Amino acid sequence: MGLKGRGLLITFEGIEGSGKTTQLKRLAAALKKQRYPVVSTHEPGGTPLGEKIRTLLVHSKTKISPETELFLFVSDRSNHVRNVIIPSLQKKQMVLCDRFTDSTIAYQAFGRSLSQKLLDGMNKLATGGLKPDITFFLDLPVQAGLRRAKSRGALNRLDRESSTFYARVRKGYYFLARKNSRIVIIDGSQSAEAIHAQILQKVNMLLSKFGQASSSNGRNRSK
Amino acid sequence: MGLKGRGLLITFEGIEGSGKTTQLKRLAAALKKQRYPVVSTHEPGGTPLGEKIRTLLVHSKTKISPETELFLFVSDRSNHVRNVIIPSLQKKQMVLCDRFTDSTIAYQAFGRSLSQKLLDGMNKLATGGLKPDITFFLDLPVQAGLRRAKSRGALNRLDRESSTFYARVRKGYYFLARKNSRIVIIDGSQSAEAIHAQILQKVNMLLSKFGQASSSNGRNRSK
Repeated sequence: MGLKGRGLLITFEGIEGSGKTTQLKRLAAALKKQRYPVVSTHEPGGTPLGEKIRTLLVHSKTKISPETELFLFVSDRSNHVRNVIIPSLQKKQMVLCDRFTDSTIAYQAFGRSLSQKLLDGMNKLATGGLKPDITFFLDLPVQAGLRRAKSRGALNRLDRESSTFYARVRKGYYFLARKNSRIVIIDGSQSAEAIHAQILQKVNMLLSKFGQASSSNGRNRSK
Repeated sequence: MGLKGRGLLITFEGIEGSGKTTQLKRLAAALKKQRYPVVSTHEPGGTPLGEKIRTLLVHSKTKISPETELFLFVSDRSNHVRNVIIPSLQKKQMVLCDRFTDSTIAYQAFGRSLSQKLLDGMNKLATGGLKPDITFFLDLPVQAGLRRAKSRGALNRLDRESSTFYARVRKGYYFLARKNSRIVIIDGSQSAEAIHAQILQKVNMLLSKFGQASSSNGRNRSK
């Protein structure tokens, strides 16, 4: 039980209401049952500094421009990677993260039309090149996601966007999934149980693959 | 009196102890005497959000990585430009700013060896392409600057760097001055009075040039 090299970084992506957070919790519980040490975290805000940044972002009374928002998100990521994600992976913990680099590309590059090339560079600087081992993109038609998010009263300042905005974000996730084999598209309209079963199967496949691998470190970490 | 188009953006740069803040105050007083409306501001921290970001940066108890620091600086700039600098310039105010985009290149690209190309892109996104009309780089040998900064007890977390770091920063400023004609190198070892006289002369030359120009806007604003 446990990995020989380092832990796995598993990220959850999707628009609001897609069920990311629910699935992250279910996977965390399942992995703990399998006796893996699990760290559940989220962006923005997985550290004390990050929580302060999140407060600035979510509860700001003054208008925050898309550019300012972007830089705050990425500063949070940079801090989160160095203080939480990398140390946990080195301790062979499984890190489950609600939103990561793909959110920046989907929301800021596709959603807000900021330069994708620049954002890729910023993501790389923020993460030091660390990439998720596997990413679950919980896909849902925009209207269905927003209906769900609204029904639980979970829409904050960041979420009050037009549905055309979310359609662009969704397109961004499809673009990323085509480019990166680590991204698994999951049909988010299925029952939570069915989705969980699919996710757990994929993760267990990855675990058996890496659990039997040599103890070489740095796997799937680009320079 | 006053400009026909928009106000001028005048920035002050240099290592700690170079006399930036003193000279900014003197120029502000001189311009007010000449009946120009003046806004004195500084980075990081020229807005309510910026002050919060500055607090995170300067008073953080946990270690902040160079990357996190960089993104926080730039998010502050992005907010500052949109909420203070551009609105003030549009009201034909003279904006005097203690540190701006050049600090990022000198400190983060040269001082901390982060990618200059990426930082140029981030600066451009943060400023929307706005550039200073004139920049005063108050130059001083590193040891002299640090002696001055120490003597007034003004070294905070950000300032407690090695002198080799500041030597790289100074080199960065020289590089920028060679590339950008807007940057005026001022010998910071002169008396405050002598430095002020040189700065005021340069600014008045610029004012007479632009005060007589047509009312076309957008001067010195790159796309």
